[in-house]
Amino acid sequence: MEFGFLQDLVVPEQTKIAMIVMDGLGGLPLEPGGKTELESAHKPNLDALAAQSILGLADPVGPGISPGSGPGHLGIFGYDPTRFTIGRGVLEALGIDFELGPNDVAARGNFCSVDAAGSLTDRRAGRIPTELNRELVEILRTIELPGVQVFVETVKDYRFVLVLRGEGLGDALSETDPQRLGVPALPVNAQSRDSEKSAALVNEFIAQARRLLADKHPANMILLRGFAKHPAMPTYKEVFGLNAAAIAVYPMYRGLAKLLGMKTLSVPGEAISDEFTVLEKNWNDFDFFYLHVKKTDSAGEDGDFARKAHVIEELDAQLPRLLALKPDVVVVGSDHSTPALLKSHSWHPVPIMLYSRHCRADNIAEYGERACARGGLGRLRSKDLMPIALANALRLTKFGA
Amino acid sequence: MEFGFLQDLVVPEQTKIAMIVMDGLGGLPLEPGGKTELESAHKPNLDALAAQSILGLADPVGPGISPGSGPGHLGIFGYDPTRFTIGRGVLEALGIDFELGPNDVAARGNFCSVDAAGSLTDRRAGRIPTELNRELVEILRTIELPGVQVFVETVKDYRFVLVLRGEGLGDALSETDPQRLGVPALPVNAQSRDSEKSAALVNEFIAQARRLLADKHPANMILLRGFAKHPAMPTYKEVFGLNAAAIAVYPMYRGLAKLLGMKTLSVPGEAISDEFTVLEKNWNDFDFFYLHVKKTDSAGEDGDFARKAHVIEELDAQLPRLLALKPDVVVVGSDHSTPALLKSHSWHPVPIMLYSRHCRADNIAEYGERACARGGLGRLRSKDLMPIALANALRLTKFGA
Repeated sequence: MEFGFLQDLVVPEQTKIAMIVMDGLGGLPLEPGGKTELESAHKPNLDALAAQSILGLADPVGPGISPGSGPGHLGIFGYDPTRFTIGRGVLEALGIDFELGPNDVAARGNFCSVDAAGSLTDRRAGRIPTELNRELVEILRTIELPGVQVFVETVKDYRFVLVLRGEGLGDALSETDPQRLGVPALPVNAQSRDSEKSAALVNEFIAQARRLLADKHPANMILLRGFAKHPAMPTYKEVFGLNAAAIAVYPMYRGLAKLLGMKTLSVPGEAISDEFTVLEKNWNDFDFFYLHVKKTDSAGEDGDFARKAHVIEELDAQLPRLLALKPDVVVVGSDHSTPALLKSHSWHPVPIMLYSRHCRADNIAEYGERACARGGLGRLRSKDLMPIALANALRLTKFGA
Repeated sequence: MEFGFLQDLVVPEQTKIAMIVMDGLGGLPLEPGGKTELESAHKPNLDALAAQSILGLADPVGPGISPGSGPGHLGIFGYDPTRFTIGRGVLEALGIDFELGPNDVAARGNFCSVDAAGSLTDRRAGRIPTELNRELVEILRTIELPGVQVFVETVKDYRFVLVLRGEGLGDALSETDPQRLGVPALPVNAQSRDSEKSAALVNEFIAQARRLLADKHPANMILLRGFAKHPAMPTYKEVFGLNAAAIAVYPMYRGLAKLLGMKTLSVPGEAISDEFTVLEKNWNDFDFFYLHVKKTDSAGEDGDFARKAHVIEELDAQLPRLLALKPDVVVVGSDHSTPALLKSHSWHPVPIMLYSRHCRADNIAEYGERACARGGLGRLRSKDLMPIALANALRLTKFGA
């Protein structure tokens, strides 16, 4: 539903919703006729919860669409990822915990290699190590631009973030990466009137960077793309009436949650059990909890089927700690599929289960892709899950008389 | 589909469609792992029809949305309830069989109590009995307003309907109910230019009502809300090419059907069997029949699981009378769920079955919520059922060459 429509139906309640997002959870069998990572995992607690839940398959963006982390999360958070977009520059900044202000323009940067004529010879500068990146970033930090603050931050390998902070900076800027070798980097063009100031400043930054890096081959030039400002997103409080907290280890997911006005709780450690400890400690202070498990996705990206199944088992072992808190609604799902077979994000819908006292359980005692395909939620868009979760939490009133 | 799209595909045919709407049919088990009202009912005829039908679960408005009777019915009638809305004043007037004209503005009225300073002390005037309501309505009927006819009609307890009939009356009017005690009723404000005349008239009505009711404590004042005109709805004939009849006992449902241009047939009695008698008698004269069963909803609202199951059994016993008429398409469904467990309308999708010679039956020999979750219709919006029913009635031609 449209947010305006939904907002009018939200009523105050004391109920609590917990949403567990196992990143990249959806999978594929390695062999035809085999089981997926989730179906292979030994997960007695998830299966027992499934028996009291309603199951379904959710398309994070739409049928056939493989989502990035941003759109995948926006979907399961209840935001239509085709309407709300987060620029790559912003995601990259969120990913390193950079605190973006409302007037900042962020871009994703690559160090690259150019020849004497200035033509690109390597778009990633031979994948220089992060240590060298840090040294080069120190050099770029000496660049000053009139009337704006300049931030340059190392991400990893050949990647960095550029942020310009100042008044009147638009983000409708073309990219400098020509996406092929043998030609020079492109100048930045303003694609709207109010981005002309930004374009001039960025081109000046690039000119200075070119001079400063001239003798630093292979990293003797930069490419910039994904110029974007912090998007103004309606918050969880505004849209759903929820006082929401995020429990996530990786900066990008904390950043995404922050964009939606969630309070990001700090996690003392990287284990799933650490996240559940934070959940327990903060249980009384919020009415929505997003708990993110990253390592299912990492294992999928590495093509490590067994490790991915093992991460699911780790989560399963922690699940009773959540259930002991007596949540009114539990959603277990994912932002997208990352089958180990494909070693990448994929288009496959994600298995979802939703537990509540009133969920109309479909009596399927297994949480898995094919079990979910038979479930009572049917096949839906991820963005439709939040209204169902709110309804099950008795937080939506009747529409119309 | 959009109506314009569908209208272009409608072709004349002699086939007949019967739609049985069991109000509030969808339910929940009382105990985890148990059966719903529908699943518990002994209903051999519905189950036998299910075996020849295609099943599914329909969201009347959207996932997570609990619909009122108006939106719920519009959905199963094929109208998008988020696009076509019916004001509360109109629904209230329909509910007492008041014949609304195209120039009428209707409002829902409450008798209320105010203190000497005019501040509200009870928004429902101590829930006065209907008999007293009738006496007070007679008093309000003495009010005359310049250039318009005034109708005041008792609904029940403290509720009445006010209708102004005349030229140039807009319905963009604010409500007088401040929704809290200790403050006076609000004046009516016009929210658009063409509603200024209405606003002035309604404020004059309120001023006179205040004087007339001054010594009638506890019902010494009125509140008005939900100002609305008869919405201009495309009719069943226009949209679907159907000559439609409605068989319903309760006024509101007859009124809803009338809004869509259905002919409302009078029912001599309140039993489900009376409705089937009307169906038989009028079978040759229409090609679409809407047959409404109210008491499933009433039982659900009362939290009476067993009585709701019993109403379903009553309907089941009558079903052979419809099948004997050899309908081409039968739709059995509902406007929304009203689980006895929740004692209210709920967000749960409604079980649907659609029978025709060409329906591609899914060979599930049970009509129930969880059976429908496995059905070939999948999970859909209620508004999508009518095109499927028309197609099964061979009343839609091919789209495109």
